[in-house]
Amino acid sequence: MIYFNCDYNEGAHEKVLERLSKTNMEQTAGYGEDEYCGQARKLICRLCKDDSLMVQFLVGGTQANMTVISAALRPHQGVLSADTGHINVHETGAVESTGHKVLSLPSVDGKITAKQVEDAYRSHVEEDSFEHMVQPKMVYISNPTELGTIYSKAELEALSQVCRKNGLYLFMDGARLGYGLTSKENDLDLEQIAKLCDVFYIGGTKVGALFGEAVVISNPALKEDFRYMIKQKGGMLAKGRLLGVQFLALLEDGLYFEISRHANELAEEIRDACKKAGYLFLVENPTNQIFVILPDVKLAELGKNYSFCYQERVDEAHSAVRICTSWATSRESVEKLIKDIEG
Amino acid sequence: MIYFNCDYNEGAHEKVLERLSKTNMEQTAGYGEDEYCGQARKLICRLCKDDSLMVQFLVGGTQANMTVISAALRPHQGVLSADTGHINVHETGAVESTGHKVLSLPSVDGKITAKQVEDAYRSHVEEDSFEHMVQPKMVYISNPTELGTIYSKAELEALSQVCRKNGLYLFMDGARLGYGLTSKENDLDLEQIAKLCDVFYIGGTKVGALFGEAVVISNPALKEDFRYMIKQKGGMLAKGRLLGVQFLALLEDGLYFEISRHANELAEEIRDACKKAGYLFLVENPTNQIFVILPDVKLAELGKNYSFCYQERVDEAHSAVRICTSWATSRESVEKLIKDIEG
Amino acid sequence: MIYFNCDYNEGAHEKVLERLSKTNMEQTAGYGEDEYCGQARKLICRLCKDDSLMVQFLVGGTQANMTVISAALRPHQGVLSADTGHINVHETGAVESTGHKVLSLPSVDGKITAKQVEDAYRSHVEEDSFEHMVQPKMVYISNPTELGTIYSKAELEALSQVCRKNGLYLFMDGARLGYGLTSKENDLDLEQIAKLCDVFYIGGTKVGALFGEAVVISNPALKEDFRYMIKQKGGMLAKGRLLGVQFLALLEDGLYFEISRHANELAEEIRDACKKAGYLFLVENPTNQIFVILPDVKLAELGKNYSFCYQERVDEAHSAVRICTSWATSRESVEKLIKDIEG
Amino acid sequence: MIYFNCDYNEGAHEKVLERLSKTNMEQTAGYGEDEYCGQARKLICRLCKDDSLMVQFLVGGTQANMTVISAALRPHQGVLSADTGHINVHETGAVESTGHKVLSLPSVDGKITAKQVEDAYRSHVEEDSFEHMVQPKMVYISNPTELGTIYSKAELEALSQVCRKNGLYLFMDGARLGYGLTSKENDLDLEQIAKLCDVFYIGGTKVGALFGEAVVISNPALKEDFRYMIKQKGGMLAKGRLLGVQFLALLEDGLYFEISRHANELAEEIRDACKKAGYLFLVENPTNQIFVILPDVKLAELGKNYSFCYQERVDEAHSAVRICTSWATSRESVEKLIKDIEG
Repeated sequence: MIYFNCDYNEGAHEKVLERLSKTNMEQTAGYGEDEYCGQARKLICRLCKDDSLMVQFLVGGTQANMTVISAALRPHQGVLSADTGHINVHETGAVESTGHKVLSLPSVDGKITAKQVEDAYRSHVEEDSFEHMVQPKMVYISNPTELGTIYSKAELEALSQVCRKNGLYLFMDGARLGYGLTSKENDLDLEQIAKLCDVFYIGGTKVGALFGEAVVISNPALKEDFRYMIKQKGGMLAKGRLLGVQFLALLEDGLYFEISRHANELAEEIRDACKKAGYLFLVENPTNQIFVILPDVKLAELGKNYSFCYQERVDEAHSAVRICTSWATSRESVEKLIKDIEG
Repeated sequence: MIYFNCDYNEGAHEKVLERLSKTNMEQTAGYGEDEYCGQARKLICRLCKDDSLMVQFLVGGTQANMTVISAALRPHQGVLSADTGHINVHETGAVESTGHKVLSLPSVDGKITAKQVEDAYRSHVEEDSFEHMVQPKMVYISNPTELGTIYSKAELEALSQVCRKNGLYLFMDGARLGYGLTSKENDLDLEQIAKLCDVFYIGGTKVGALFGEAVVISNPALKEDFRYMIKQKGGMLAKGRLLGVQFLALLEDGLYFEISRHANELAEEIRDACKKAGYLFLVENPTNQIFVILPDVKLAELGKNYSFCYQERVDEAHSAVRICTSWATSRESVEKLIKDIEG
Repeated sequence: MIYFNCDYNEGAHEKVLERLSKTNMEQTAGYGEDEYCGQARKLICRLCKDDSLMVQFLVGGTQANMTVISAALRPHQGVLSADTGHINVHETGAVESTGHKVLSLPSVDGKITAKQVEDAYRSHVEEDSFEHMVQPKMVYISNPTELGTIYSKAELEALSQVCRKNGLYLFMDGARLGYGLTSKENDLDLEQIAKLCDVFYIGGTKVGALFGEAVVISNPALKEDFRYMIKQKGGMLAKGRLLGVQFLALLEDGLYFEISRHANELAEEIRDACKKAGYLFLVENPTNQIFVILPDVKLAELGKNYSFCYQERVDEAHSAVRICTSWATSRESVEKLIKDIEG
Repeated sequence: MIYFNCDYNEGAHEKVLERLSKTNMEQTAGYGEDEYCGQARKLICRLCKDDSLMVQFLVGGTQANMTVISAALRPHQGVLSADTGHINVHETGAVESTGHKVLSLPSVDGKITAKQVEDAYRSHVEEDSFEHMVQPKMVYISNPTELGTIYSKAELEALSQVCRKNGLYLFMDGARLGYGLTSKENDLDLEQIAKLCDVFYIGGTKVGALFGEAVVISNPALKEDFRYMIKQKGGMLAKGRLLGVQFLALLEDGLYFEISRHANELAEEIRDACKKAGYLFLVENPTNQIFVILPDVKLAELGKNYSFCYQERVDEAHSAVRICTSWATSRESVEKLIKDIEG
């Protein structure tokens, strides 16, 4: 069985593991106050071309989302999100557990628009009994989204503008950021993201690390006492240097982007094979996730050798599945799959 | 200016106030442990024909909703509600502030169906990563709904059945219950509601009391330690007897139902006048709220003498407004309004 | 049985009730946005000699404490309080239920000192792993305290100074403020309290109202969006004018202070009788609560006709009880009690 | 500089790291549903001699504490803990952030007694206004405690008994459990702990793992939906097998106990050296932490080559420090330190 069901089936890229082994018996300060975290912080600032950024390393995505959002909001404030947003559907109400409503906006491709944000903000402000409603204060987007789509520079600029105009924070969940930034359709870079967002993170868990998300905060209001929040939410790793070491290994020589590109290219090949075979897609997207609609008969056949992530029934004879490549996917596995798709 | 904008513009029915005055200087135990609350509890049990019910008196609706819901749910559980439900839109995220997600279901008339509940429950149970999603555990309905519609006995039975089958609590917000139970289309009574729901409340604030909601709990699991929850959520009134005295005055001789019927009848007259004048309705409903669509010109004219609650723009020349009658509305005011609608 | 067990056994002062009756059938705006609340706000500003104060009316003390504290703090921040503080022992963890730790300081008479606050703040700041501890951000005091003691002007000034030096908010719970301000030992007034505290409240529930606490906010940071917080915490009374009307009745002609003084004077007479009878006190204090230590035999005898609040066992033959007078206590009842104490 | 300041300065034991490397590129299910976690679960059940135990792996101690406690309690319930308990002082209010009060009990050596628990429970039950107070529902202990002391079998039995009598859950924080179980004074084993506690955890972070705590739940009431809680609190590691693999490596051949014993023995040698040198101890204890009182002059001298954890000033010329050994401490370092203590 070859697993294409998600992008976190394996451990870490060998270079990450090597680095962890090499530094294993060193004695360092705990809680992310060691030199490796320090170096990784500086490196991320350099990549974002902004020395004033605060960088904090967390273990996972739900933890990062919940910590950032609860650190930013006052109790009566909520966060706008696509209805398909990870915080809205797949975090067991982590955001609500910290007291905040996720204000969901309809979305077909996982993205939300500046206009949707403006309208949601307006409808709150203009409501007569506005104090009886949750106050929108943050916008959560993921890039790539849960449906593998990405924001263009123009779209992100528009979102950023409407947020700043209305005093909303813009937060980008970058759990798969590597796959987004190396997509052939991408026109964004870390520098722009750091400028346009108030806070975002560079995902490691799905891109070559054992675990880890590097939270990057540009808005000074969000930096204040952020480390207290990490500790309170259970996210302060005792041996914090494990996170610093991993991000150093990933980012120092561009490994993060190299392995992301690898996954995207393999995904593109699978996508092309699907197109050639005449299959349609639940959503068209240019990153490492492929949302293809397969005849049930075909799916049953492929299911003998491959694991996909079932999405939804499309009609009586067709289902949509998610096929994921990752930094760890081998060309060999992909060629085998393509042959079987074609066959 | 005559106010038809809501059903809580005045104080209390004179008989309620008289009773408060008469008992004013008596010394009683605090926190709802006095004799008046005791008598009111017994009376409500008698009206519901079930001596085992727990009855607790709270001050307001948001407080009642938040206290009941947070008392019932474990942290990872959520409450299903119509998207128009009061807890979903007009309580500043009170439910979320206690850590729970409101799982909203689409609704056009303020009601939700047994099928919607079943489907929502199924889609959770059948999801592969169900532990990554909020677990539905309670169903919140309001009767009458925020749009003035009411549940039939058959509908409530169906909801109750699907809840019991799936281990969900059924909670009815009865902020306007009097107006519902005395509607000409109603076929429910307190006994049935107490049987079919796990918890509900009899609203006083909008039906003749200065304030107060009588929460009635039939499910033993929800009774346990409920008074701790009232205290913690700030809802335990020091001079609790004020609530007991008011509900006694309202319920002892059927005053509650008499004044509710009064409001419904006046609403019906206004509704008829609107129909005769050719106006359409945002929603058709049989209680004290009328959601009529008026030409903007007519609205401007009426607006000189009457206050309504603006709902939404319908088209370039029409708006929907809510016109409310209540226990306190005089026939004189209504006749004047009808004349002006006709005129 | 005459009840001296607490100061909220009766309803409201007759003038309060009259005013409620007189305005009962008026139609006003809801949620405290009516004219009566407006007038009461202005009156309180005038009494505090500061037109920039925000005044909001809440129903009860636990609600006021929880709303003020959760509105002021970020998630990692806590509130310093005497270990005997109401929020620390008698609110079923309401403050914790909003996510915040009560950082308790030892106290023998219900009061805390500027030095205790300074030391607590220092010990946090100087701790190596300060981010692993709750950050003190607010100081909660009650005046009079739960033990009936009061803060002198010098003490409050010292507390205010240490708070401002260290960026802490000073919050005074004034549930019994009337009894404090009219104590023969008091040297504080509303103007000074408004200046020295960031937020405080004038308690109505225990001083002549049916219910109600007037929260007065001087610090601009605490005013922002405060009404959202009231709504979210279930404290926004639909018929908010009930609160405005009551505070107008209490404060317009000095009734609040007059009836408070009355209670203090009667308490003083009981206190003197106890002293003459040779009884000791759990704590010496100058307001409406008397914490006297009685022989169990005597207590049993008095218990036939009077209800006190049992405090604690002092030794094998003695118990401490709380005897409360209030605005509603009659001279007749007190004279009877004194005779029985002497007898 | 040699670090004796804590027991998590290094990475993982080499055998742990080897195992992670060996399994690195395998494809497994996520979220702890892989085979390694399955095997580790079975192994722990075997060690505890109870196949019905639920075992869940979490990343860190604060996360484990917060998840277990918030999963177990209803909103009005609190957890009893020594005032020195980790949850009470060093977790930035994580427990309170989930809505629950930590009810602290005085302790001089980090331990609490069955009598203290019984008294606390009694005082709640017997309080007249018990519903106005937080209801004690869980007892949190750590073994070893934050002061390195351990519970005897008799003490744990007494605690367990009083908890079961009163319906309280007993929860043991075992962040340093290995050091406790291999202490020369210990008379407890995993089987007894699993029987006497409702839930406890076997700490990996401080005993040879990169990170990880194995939560073991025996009480069925606490098992229900526990994995939802892990996800909601941000503790569900995507590559969950990392935890299973590590615990397998640690527990399969007794490595966990072997390396714990090693640390205890080295600690004993340091302790003896301190005694011989005439130094007193802040607390006497038999595990890997030594709380010794040193002359400031001596401390300054040692501080040139060794890092300790400063505890507190004892008098004008003396300070207490914590010296920690761990699984990673070398005999060489300890011998050097002993020489310098003696010298």
